[in-house]
Amino acid sequence: MKRIVFYLVAIAMAGGMLAVTAPLSGHADEEAAPIYGVKLPAGYRDWPMISIAQVGAPVNDIRAKLGNDTAMKAFRDGTRPFPDGTIIARLAYQQVASEESNKVIRAVAEQRGLPPEQIEKLLAGSFVAGPPTNVQFMVKDSKKYAATGGWGFAQFTNGKPDDEATHKTCFGCHAPAKDHDFVFTRYTP
Amino acid sequence: MKRIVFYLVAIAMAGGMLAVTAPLSGHADEEAAPIYGVKLPAGYRDWPMISIAQVGAPVNDIRAKLGNDTAMKAFRDGTRPFPDGTIIARLAYQQVASEESNKVIRAVAEQRGLPPEQIEKLLAGSFVAGPPTNVQFMVKDSKKYAATGGWGFAQFTNGKPDDEATHKTCFGCHAPAKDHDFVFTRYTP
Repeated sequence: MKRIVFYLVAIAMAGGMLAVTAPLSGHADEEAAPIYGVKLPAGYRDWPMISIAQVGAPVNDIRAKLGNDTAMKAFRDGTRPFPDGTIIARLAYQQVASEESNKVIRAVAEQRGLPPEQIEKLLAGSFVAGPPTNVQFMVKDSKKYAATGGWGFAQFTNGKPDDEATHKTCFGCHAPAKDHDFVFTRYTP
Repeated sequence: MKRIVFYLVAIAMAGGMLAVTAPLSGHADEEAAPIYGVKLPAGYRDWPMISIAQVGAPVNDIRAKLGNDTAMKAFRDGTRPFPDGTIIARLAYQQVASEESNKVIRAVAEQRGLPPEQIEKLLAGSFVAGPPTNVQFMVKDSKKYAATGGWGFAQFTNGKPDDEATHKTCFGCHAPAKDHDFVFTRYTP
């Protein structure tokens, strides 16, 4: 089961909703991800948000998709395929319950007369982002990555690229999104 | 029950995790929120992400907190109280199931041998962001908002400020977070 969870986490993340790789740029001293040679894109943590999502147990994560300027413009203009230079980042975090937030949610729910069993359900479904799990990138370069729909993929855990086996799964999982240039995520206003 | 849900949505959002108001600036032609006089901050949709969270049924939302430059610096440096000029935005969306994403998650889970009942649980807990519900802001101005911990609050639905009754609830819900300058959200890297 532990192994199943491990794979599920790795794969649901690699393919579940978005995906995976960084640019040719990045910091020179950083390792490139296998297969696609993608490095951690500089400054990605400050990119605007494309949208957010969550994946159920046993993965139990909550995730944000961020985009560089080229990505944001393409999402907003509806440009498909995405232009070269597009980078999409997927940051995932463990779902964790927040005692502090739940206290407030409970107080308000009680005040508003929500029945106790419904309050428990409300709290059981309320989470904040906990420790990060990994970060994925999709980098568009229609020539360099012609064999994989024009996308390079990458996954980093604690700033280090994951192994080749992980990266072999990226493109296959994205194949069903071919009609949207292999990107699952939709922009939310 | 419908009324309860309505209040819960309004309140869990106003107080559940983050909160609520925009700057003195904003667009001149836009309406200011009641009590605090906050307008929609220009460009907030492109601000970097502070963190993300979700609230269970019957609220069923998934939410992102974004911050202006002053907010991001304070979160990263651990500066408390937050300096004047800090603005925190909370964007909430309905949790919706994505058939397209779930198809991929199911395929990967089956391939990895996850038992059927666990696959159902996995899918039942997997959502993407659907239609936006409302947007909230917290604006720091220690003099102007001295009576409410230095924060002005605002909630907008479809670009229009919500009513005064809604805005009366903001500060009370944030009181339990007094030790963190009335902000529930923690920055996630």
